[in-house]
Amino acid sequence: MLKTQYRFTVEWGDCDPADIVFYPNYLKWMDTSTRYLFRAAGLEIMKMFIDLDMVGLPIVDAHANFKIASTVGDELVVESWVEEWRAKTFLVRHNIFKQGALAVEGHELRVWGIRHPETRALKAGVAPADIVARFG
Amino acid sequence: MLKTQYRFTVEWGDCDPADIVFYPNYLKWMDTSTRYLFRAAGLEIMKMFIDLDMVGLPIVDAHANFKIASTVGDELVVESWVEEWRAKTFLVRHNIFKQGALAVEGHELRVWGIRHPETRALKAGVAPADIVARFG
Amino acid sequence: MLKTQYRFTVEWGDCDPADIVFYPNYLKWMDTSTRYLFRAAGLEIMKMFIDLDMVGLPIVDAHANFKIASTVGDELVVESWVEEWRAKTFLVRHNIFKQGALAVEGHELRVWGIRHPETRALKAGVAPADIVARFG
Amino acid sequence: MLKTQYRFTVEWGDCDPADIVFYPNYLKWMDTSTRYLFRAAGLEIMKMFIDLDMVGLPIVDAHANFKIASTVGDELVVESWVEEWRAKTFLVRHNIFKQGALAVEGHELRVWGIRHPETRALKAGVAPADIVARFG
Repeated sequence: MLKTQYRFTVEWGDCDPADIVFYPNYLKWMDTSTRYLFRAAGLEIMKMFIDLDMVGLPIVDAHANFKIASTVGDELVVESWVEEWRAKTFLVRHNIFKQGALAVEGHELRVWGIRHPETRALKAGVAPADIVARFG
Repeated sequence: MLKTQYRFTVEWGDCDPADIVFYPNYLKWMDTSTRYLFRAAGLEIMKMFIDLDMVGLPIVDAHANFKIASTVGDELVVESWVEEWRAKTFLVRHNIFKQGALAVEGHELRVWGIRHPETRALKAGVAPADIVARFG
Repeated sequence: MLKTQYRFTVEWGDCDPADIVFYPNYLKWMDTSTRYLFRAAGLEIMKMFIDLDMVGLPIVDAHANFKIASTVGDELVVESWVEEWRAKTFLVRHNIFKQGALAVEGHELRVWGIRHPETRALKAGVAPADIVARFG
Repeated sequence: MLKTQYRFTVEWGDCDPADIVFYPNYLKWMDTSTRYLFRAAGLEIMKMFIDLDMVGLPIVDAHANFKIASTVGDELVVESWVEEWRAKTFLVRHNIFKQGALAVEGHELRVWGIRHPETRALKAGVAPADIVARFG
């Protein structure tokens, strides 16, 4: 199974008056980590969206469980992988580590978002088998 | 049960290259709506944090389920209420409506975050009964 | 001259560990206020971009001078107007008030961003005279 | 003169429906780059704020001039240095490069923000000479 590690540092503007990360930022980092997971699979999403006439990978469900707080200067690692490919969606798991300890555990359920050939509107599609195969 | 409606408009900077809301923003709006819920209960959080020697209301668990996408100019309403007070946490429910239809359904589980009297560090405390009573 | 007032409240997630607004957010609010200025001129930008085959109104220059700090719960008003229409750009002025006092003074210089008819790439264009006229 | 290079990648959530960076994010990256400049001078800001009883380094004036647009996946470098130390403020210059070309040019004028010894409120102070010396 393809797993990636996205490393980043918590910055001043990511934190709130309680001196810890403003929590929606963790979802932002999960979203970013999904992009790096696709890149590791050989897929640059902006190019893939054009090549496959896609709108994007809209979210259906997102969850995060917070175990350890982080603050300015902390170096975090998001470990991400696709746990399951369903009919027209796929489930990405994210474990965020701080100094080796599991700090946040989350998931994103995403739609394979193609365009309706006539209306050009977003619709759920089926991910091509050769793409699914890249995620092991 | 005390329920509030927080109304806001989706702005250009809230949206991503797929022309829809960048999803972590929904969690930002849930966070904001929790502040208005406390305000409706007669509690200004910044003042409450000082009065009760609190660090804040850190998140333990957050979840959102996305049913309808939104874009620039859409007017959304977050309906929020405390569903349950547990030992040292409380569960806030959020329903986000777009033109009357349920667009996003979410929750936040938050700690009642006081300061350790000596170390000043964050620790979970028990919300005062008169405060809990205000949320019906 | 058409002037608009965009009113909003500073939220928890807008503030940083110094307990004041994380300053890039002021630019976000200036951007939002420009959208309301266009709306007051009868122009919904998302519709206008489609109708006039535009990419957007990309920024060329932005400036903000900060006089009074703000924090969670503060109610601010952004007063905005187009001060000048140049060849292919226009200058929007923003005064942000807190309880009647000028808290931030800023500007945005923006391109009238059309699409090249063949390559579809962004290029600077000339704003139609009937649109310019709406801003007084 | 001490100069730092802060390298980062533009992410999906940094971009707007025009498929380019939502411009207030450039100010966020300038802010971040200032932190790395202090770190290169041997100063971790969170520790420095505690050691020197400071509130922070609040912004007085910010400016950015945009020359080249960037989008998802672009790798940018912010080059930063303190150009001038004034009585109670200092001017940080930021040049943001994309593939070696100057994409954004900006500055931040910041206050040396200490606490009033009695009221604990933010007030402008004079940066210690040994700190100023570290920036060359």
